[in-house]
Amino acid sequence: MSKTYAPLNPPRRLLYGPGPTMVDPRVYQAMTKTVVSHLDPYFFEVVEDCREMLRTAFGTTNEFTLAMSGTGSAGMQTAVANFVEPGSKFVVLANGFFCDRISEMGRRQGANVVRLEKAWGEAFDEAEAAAFIRAERPSVVGFVQAETSTGVFQTSKAICAAAHEVGALVIADCVTSLGTMPVELDANGIDIAYSCTQKGLSCPPGLAPVTVSPKAMEWLRNRKTTPADWYLDLKLLADYYEGARRYHHTAPISLFYALREGLLCIHEEGIEQRWARHKAAHEAFVAGIEAMGMEMHVKAGQRLTSLNTPRVPEGIEDLKVRKRLLAATDMEILGGFGPLAGKVFRVGIMGPLATEENVIALVAGLETALREEGFAAKGSGVEAAKAAYAAVVA
Amino acid sequence: MSKTYAPLNPPRRLLYGPGPTMVDPRVYQAMTKTVVSHLDPYFFEVVEDCREMLRTAFGTTNEFTLAMSGTGSAGMQTAVANFVEPGSKFVVLANGFFCDRISEMGRRQGANVVRLEKAWGEAFDEAEAAAFIRAERPSVVGFVQAETSTGVFQTSKAICAAAHEVGALVIADCVTSLGTMPVELDANGIDIAYSCTQKGLSCPPGLAPVTVSPKAMEWLRNRKTTPADWYLDLKLLADYYEGARRYHHTAPISLFYALREGLLCIHEEGIEQRWARHKAAHEAFVAGIEAMGMEMHVKAGQRLTSLNTPRVPEGIEDLKVRKRLLAATDMEILGGFGPLAGKVFRVGIMGPLATEENVIALVAGLETALREEGFAAKGSGVEAAKAAYAAVVA
Repeated sequence: MSKTYAPLNPPRRLLYGPGPTMVDPRVYQAMTKTVVSHLDPYFFEVVEDCREMLRTAFGTTNEFTLAMSGTGSAGMQTAVANFVEPGSKFVVLANGFFCDRISEMGRRQGANVVRLEKAWGEAFDEAEAAAFIRAERPSVVGFVQAETSTGVFQTSKAICAAAHEVGALVIADCVTSLGTMPVELDANGIDIAYSCTQKGLSCPPGLAPVTVSPKAMEWLRNRKTTPADWYLDLKLLADYYEGARRYHHTAPISLFYALREGLLCIHEEGIEQRWARHKAAHEAFVAGIEAMGMEMHVKAGQRLTSLNTPRVPEGIEDLKVRKRLLAATDMEILGGFGPLAGKVFRVGIMGPLATEENVIALVAGLETALREEGFAAKGSGVEAAKAAYAAVVA
Repeated sequence: MSKTYAPLNPPRRLLYGPGPTMVDPRVYQAMTKTVVSHLDPYFFEVVEDCREMLRTAFGTTNEFTLAMSGTGSAGMQTAVANFVEPGSKFVVLANGFFCDRISEMGRRQGANVVRLEKAWGEAFDEAEAAAFIRAERPSVVGFVQAETSTGVFQTSKAICAAAHEVGALVIADCVTSLGTMPVELDANGIDIAYSCTQKGLSCPPGLAPVTVSPKAMEWLRNRKTTPADWYLDLKLLADYYEGARRYHHTAPISLFYALREGLLCIHEEGIEQRWARHKAAHEAFVAGIEAMGMEMHVKAGQRLTSLNTPRVPEGIEDLKVRKRLLAATDMEILGGFGPLAGKVFRVGIMGPLATEENVIALVAGLETALREEGFAAKGSGVEAAKAAYAAVVA
């Protein structure tokens, strides 16, 4: 043994980025529980609890709701590999980075990907998207409910209705909505959705919750071609997680313990209270941003409450602000990328951080960092954020 | 909030199955360390340490050594999806369940899968396999170094040499060898290998160590077709984990903490000491089994030291023995499946369990359970296991 390695000692970080986000201490403790076998009846009890609580978070009664043994991107690939067949037409509503990613995955499956484009930061008008779908008549429609690259929330009732009119299935990316705001899967008519554990569910990354409507499962059971992807094949996973308990892969037991505990925290708080708590934090943050004279990149009414994208003020370098904030407060926020590189901050306020105390501290820290970089704030962000919270209480 | 959920409380299990295996308390503690971002410099330090220590365990100098964000089966899919092209010829040496699985993955990639078959529990004669490869002239050869379904270890120097003669790359499944016995990747000439974290590395499941030779990486960089699999695309992952640090997916940070700690335990013990410890445990267990008058399914010299497959004695029901053992001692061993269903036990002795005390306790528990099921043991398994340990010390 020549080299010596230092003990594991991660730096302190307050994760106000788009994810991973802060993990509840209870969730960390859950991961110290002893691993059981992936075929142990106890493991399947844990899985069943996760499935049940995930349904509530997704707003669905879908029997087929589970967590894939990979990160959020594996959830996206699950949706595409199982439901987008080679040669099929796949319409993607494209207004951000993850829309590009799902398009790329569709092309890799050999699909004919047809895109309706929109600038990064704008939501689609549902009627416009519906008309596009009716004209294109695809087999599958993909859209991103919560765009992590832009902060946009996409409504989808009319989009799903148009897809169903032409016999298409609808895939929705709920990576940044699940657990922080209503997904309303069934009410919207979404057939297939996926998410991750490290954003709105306040768990470590590593699992991808996925839910599939009975209609989409029936389509899948009748699918003639075999997906190239064995690891994420939902028909095989149905045999493992439902009914036969037939071995497929060795599920990451400790991450399921973490997910169950994270979902239990949400269950105990109450999902609607949790949504309200995130909304209040978001509104207080926006009030603070606007009081300082900054602008939000996304129009009011189209914003995620989990992830905020204030524009970087003219003449200010976003990286310098972020570095200053991190050095002074351990708070980590991220910048934009692609067409939004240098133009927006990406500020996630999720889970344990979505409280008055934390939002005020964040706005204060950001205000200081901005001022030190030469930004002349119009008014006090902190006072405005406090006032917003006071209004919620009143 | 209507339903209440019980606190997470997994049953006590001593995991003497093929995996998952027992996790060191240090590894559990590592997972309680706070998550940092997947783009945090600290995370990349953790990754670099893992890469370095994995090379030692694999017996390779391959620069491209990392852990995929999925379980061992994702490792297998990584190898196949990246290196087995549609339309190519893929020779599989098939003598167990995981050989069947890699064949299936090859077919799903659109390859022409050609198999050399052998009974479950027998190793291939290297000259015979080499002749098959020379005759078939495939693009890729796949074999399983450590068959979890049978307990067979496959030597591979001549196999790899024959593959290279015809210009083929060699994929080896090292899921049950890595960390418990020499893999000797470079000495054997293996181009691509994958493993898991929940067997010989004594970590929870969830990551798949993968290593690729410079020659195979060069082949991959020149590959003309795009893999259908985006999540496990090694060219994209090279951009994330090496050089550019370009965001690909949000890596499961806590599992990387666990892997680093598990590898550190191995590093501190010394890999050769660890191999010797597993070999001693295996030999003592075999001595105990044979003293009782039972037989090992796999010939001496072809056995894994991590996973033992004693035959179920005539007239004994394996499930009854396993249930009795579990109820009396919390020790979990597994049965055979496929052609070996009801015919063998699968007994993994890995990590913290590969000690004299634990092996003796296991043999004692198994001996009692077998006797209670009506097996007339020829001699004392426990005495033989003790004698085997005494011989190692002497």
